[in-house]
Amino acid sequence: MKFDLTATDLHSKARAGVITTDHGQIHTPIFMPVGTVATVKGVFHRDLKDEIKAEIILGNTYHLYLRPGLDVLKAAGGLHKFSAWDRPILTDSGGYQVFSLAENRKLTNEGCTFRSHIDGSKHMFTPENVMDIQRVIGADIIMAFDECPPGTATYEYAKKSLDLTQGWLGRCIKRFDETEGLYGYSQTLFPIVQGCVYPDLRRKAAEHAAALDREGYAIGGLAVGEPAEKMYEMIEVVNEILPSTKPRYLMGVGTPVNILEGISRGVDMFDCVMPTRNGRNGMLFTSEGIINIRNLKWRDDFSPIDPNGSAFVDTTYTKAYLRHLFISDEMLGAQIASMHNLAFYLWLVRESRAHILAGDFAQWKEMMVPKLSVRL
Amino acid sequence: MKFDLTATDLHSKARAGVITTDHGQIHTPIFMPVGTVATVKGVFHRDLKDEIKAEIILGNTYHLYLRPGLDVLKAAGGLHKFSAWDRPILTDSGGYQVFSLAENRKLTNEGCTFRSHIDGSKHMFTPENVMDIQRVIGADIIMAFDECPPGTATYEYAKKSLDLTQGWLGRCIKRFDETEGLYGYSQTLFPIVQGCVYPDLRRKAAEHAAALDREGYAIGGLAVGEPAEKMYEMIEVVNEILPSTKPRYLMGVGTPVNILEGISRGVDMFDCVMPTRNGRNGMLFTSEGIINIRNLKWRDDFSPIDPNGSAFVDTTYTKAYLRHLFISDEMLGAQIASMHNLAFYLWLVRESRAHILAGDFAQWKEMMVPKLSVRL
Ligand SMILES: [Zn+2]
Ligand SMILES: [Zn+2]
Repeated sequence: MKFDLTATDLHSKARAGVITTDHGQIHTPIFMPVGTVATVKGVFHRDLKDEIKAEIILGNTYHLYLRPGLDVLKAAGGLHKFSAWDRPILTDSGGYQVFSLAENRKLTNEGCTFRSHIDGSKHMFTPENVMDIQRVIGADIIMAFDECPPGTATYEYAKKSLDLTQGWLGRCIKRFDETEGLYGYSQTLFPIVQGCVYPDLRRKAAEHAAALDREGYAIGGLAVGEPAEKMYEMIEVVNEILPSTKPRYLMGVGTPVNILEGISRGVDMFDCVMPTRNGRNGMLFTSEGIINIRNLKWRDDFSPIDPNGSAFVDTTYTKAYLRHLFISDEMLGAQIASMHNLAFYLWLVRESRAHILAGDFAQWKEMMVPKLSVRL
Repeated sequence: MKFDLTATDLHSKARAGVITTDHGQIHTPIFMPVGTVATVKGVFHRDLKDEIKAEIILGNTYHLYLRPGLDVLKAAGGLHKFSAWDRPILTDSGGYQVFSLAENRKLTNEGCTFRSHIDGSKHMFTPENVMDIQRVIGADIIMAFDECPPGTATYEYAKKSLDLTQGWLGRCIKRFDETEGLYGYSQTLFPIVQGCVYPDLRRKAAEHAAALDREGYAIGGLAVGEPAEKMYEMIEVVNEILPSTKPRYLMGVGTPVNILEGISRGVDMFDCVMPTRNGRNGMLFTSEGIINIRNLKWRDDFSPIDPNGSAFVDTTYTKAYLRHLFISDEMLGAQIASMHNLAFYLWLVRESRAHILAGDFAQWKEMMVPKLSVRL
């Protein structure tokens, strides 16, 4: 993996860059649609490319390990071939899912035993085997195995958790550096900076990670219930320390406003289930604000879903039609809303990049932020 | 509407023709994807055109009358504009749904009162208002309002029902001929030939309908539980009488084999929910037979879903991947299977037409029928 910093904004910390992987280039800042279990819910890969213009998508180690399972993924030749996606993929390590989804969790220094949320079967994740699993999945960018403390963790808990995560990080790196990709292209490992909402823990974590000199870094454990201002503060603390020559990935964030605020603080990569999950519930993000398409007010609004939208659904279908699909529980509604929202998120980061390159990102962002959270 | 009979098979009753409507041409024999409530479940209209190559789709009067409702459809300028579909549409009259779905049904000579299956609200359908409703919906081809007796109806019941349906048909025609389309293009009304499984009733119904000299005819009340042989016999009885210069639409049929048998007996138009409904359950129809994609045997079968398939999903995705989506309850599975099945049904009728034109339909059909029901 290679990262070229193309431009840095003068009036904010925003940056534009290019990540080069063996599966192609990623123009940052970038939003990565979430394809948890080898599918971005409700979206054909063709439309991820042509309509949404996704440059990289996510997979999740915990989910893929359980289904379809490593033997299938290995026999397929990895996740790219299995899911017919030839652009870059990033996999989350499964840490977050083990701590939020799995049952009968037992945590030790060695790793974590858990029961599958699907069939109750017993499994163990360790820093080492999570590297091995991500070798089999074969994502271009893989994540270290970490503990994800809850948003409400006390300082004591957060400190202990960070020690564990940092110990695990060393073991992840050792295993990763001793092994190789299975499919003829290279993979890279991002450490995850934890530390909850405690600036000194975040600083310690960032310094520890930076010293390891990896090709990129993730910021984890945010957008888990803390106030947005706290999240922004933590991003500032961490990005002050992470090397400016490496991409920074803010995990699991967030709303369109969160994304612009993250970009202005020097974040390069984002992912979130919000565009698809909220889309399936009838919430549309647009450049003019947020639409709840189930509202009666759209019943006979025959204007396009989003006249400024870049996906074909935006101008093909009307708000009245989309509302009808949601009111009638028709799956096409979820398909249209998911495609729209993802295309909007990708538009938002493309537009951010264009404004960074043009030198007026900070102004543009100030103009956009109030609009993005208006309820239409 | 205009119907040109292009060719008739020498070794069967199969015909090839062209129906011309104000929304374009339909090459018969044709299969019409079912878009009950203004959407073919899980399929973008773009893909209905480009991948599935649908030339005409169905809507349902009962469903559209309840949701989105006539005021919305009228304000939109009809169903074509409402749903962004500019090719021909046919609407079923709602008779079948009133008798199978609605509650608290009360049937009189005047019409039928019922309660909505959605909110229990009370409504009445009459031959006259069902014509008016279909004027508002604005399909190119609309259906007469009929009573649909159950497949198990006695001769006495079937006879009485046919009398009612024939009385209603006269009223439908009167109202239709006294009114005009609302949106500047023309509509045509097809009578529906009923008569259950009783040859003399079918004959009577077909003669009655033929004498009315309409632009096309539907055969209803089949594929409702009777043996397939009985259905084929009824088609033969009816098509012996219906004029060969008018298109014949066999309502709600059926499996790929049913469709080839119908074509060989002179049917020109078909519709069925099977490709989408069975698709959503993981059943795929192919030229080599039927696949239950949930079966363990596809777990690591990395061959294309259907190497002979004409939709992009057929060659983009593998059986193992599609199985994984179904096992993981991912909606993309239903989307892929629905697109595949509909594209297959349209391939089947296109291929039938090509063989009718080439003069070897009967042979080809004999070769295909045993293959189509093989369980792979
Ligand atoms: Zn999120
Ligand atoms: Zn059917």
